[in-house]
Amino acid sequence: MGEAEHHAEYSSFDASLSKAEVLQQVIDSYESLVFEQQNWVCNLSNASSLIWHAYHSMNIPVNWSGFYLVDPKVSKQLILGPFQGKVACQTIGFGRGVCGTCYSTMETQLVPDVNEYPGHIACDGETQSEIVVPVISKGKNGEANVIRGVLDIDCLAKEGFDEVDKKFLELLAERIAETCEW
Amino acid sequence: MGEAEHHAEYSSFDASLSKAEVLQQVIDSYESLVFEQQNWVCNLSNASSLIWHAYHSMNIPVNWSGFYLVDPKVSKQLILGPFQGKVACQTIGFGRGVCGTCYSTMETQLVPDVNEYPGHIACDGETQSEIVVPVISKGKNGEANVIRGVLDIDCLAKEGFDEVDKKFLELLAERIAETCEW
Repeated sequence: MGEAEHHAEYSSFDASLSKAEVLQQVIDSYESLVFEQQNWVCNLSNASSLIWHAYHSMNIPVNWSGFYLVDPKVSKQLILGPFQGKVACQTIGFGRGVCGTCYSTMETQLVPDVNEYPGHIACDGETQSEIVVPVISKGKNGEANVIRGVLDIDCLAKEGFDEVDKKFLELLAERIAETCEW
Repeated sequence: MGEAEHHAEYSSFDASLSKAEVLQQVIDSYESLVFEQQNWVCNLSNASSLIWHAYHSMNIPVNWSGFYLVDPKVSKQLILGPFQGKVACQTIGFGRGVCGTCYSTMETQLVPDVNEYPGHIACDGETQSEIVVPVISKGKNGEANVIRGVLDIDCLAKEGFDEVDKKFLELLAERIAETCEW
């Protein structure tokens, strides 16, 4: 999209677009919104909104989109960050559930049916499928990568997400990691 | 409400409740959610969701609920915090628009028609009315009060908010100020 007259217009997606096109628009809009802005709370809040409205434009019944970040106070747990959707669990232990596993493995978790996921933590009993993508800052000058947290999206339908979501959400998470000051 | 089996249940409000009862439930649920949790990003994220679902349970067409905080990096401006709704303006100067005026005056701004508010900043051209409440930590031992930011709620209808909203949202903002580590 071009420059928006109102910020809310970034939440509009043309109904004729393919999923890949919608998710590319999310990435492009994110880039516009974080231009000269590195505040992670600000940027993750708008990213959650972009994702929510993108999926709803495609009639994919996403019921939660947001972030869990490494808790700055308590070791070995993630803490709730900005999101769209119903009230959510405040903290998740490293290695626990889909988000905690994504954190510990630093790998995207694509879960077509959360009922079949061992140790799934249900913040919302209506969630049927989920994708969780790690937000990783790449180490520069030989330093190790640092994981900041995870991007979590829940869906009311089974098999809500596929390899196309994984590809574009990983690209988005990469840009989020690089554009925010943590 | 009693203890929720799933956190998402905090987002449910009985349709038979009065506005005062719904907003009191928001405050009570907020207290439960922040028990032993002082992380402001976590707490404001869930507060935004509680508010959103509370107003929608009353069929009040709220199109945005969230926070702008004092920018820790750039002087004399507010920066976007956790919210529910469409993508929003990243920063607002102190004294500018409804949020900036709330910040500067440390007084709730109840705006029945944003089109008649001088200098209104439209993040969403569809917004018709707005209430903005300051989040103020009371100074202890004779110290001055400190304003952390503002709670902002937008509505698609004119006169979306009244003195009942003002009363309960000010109580909520007071509890938010006291229960978070800033």
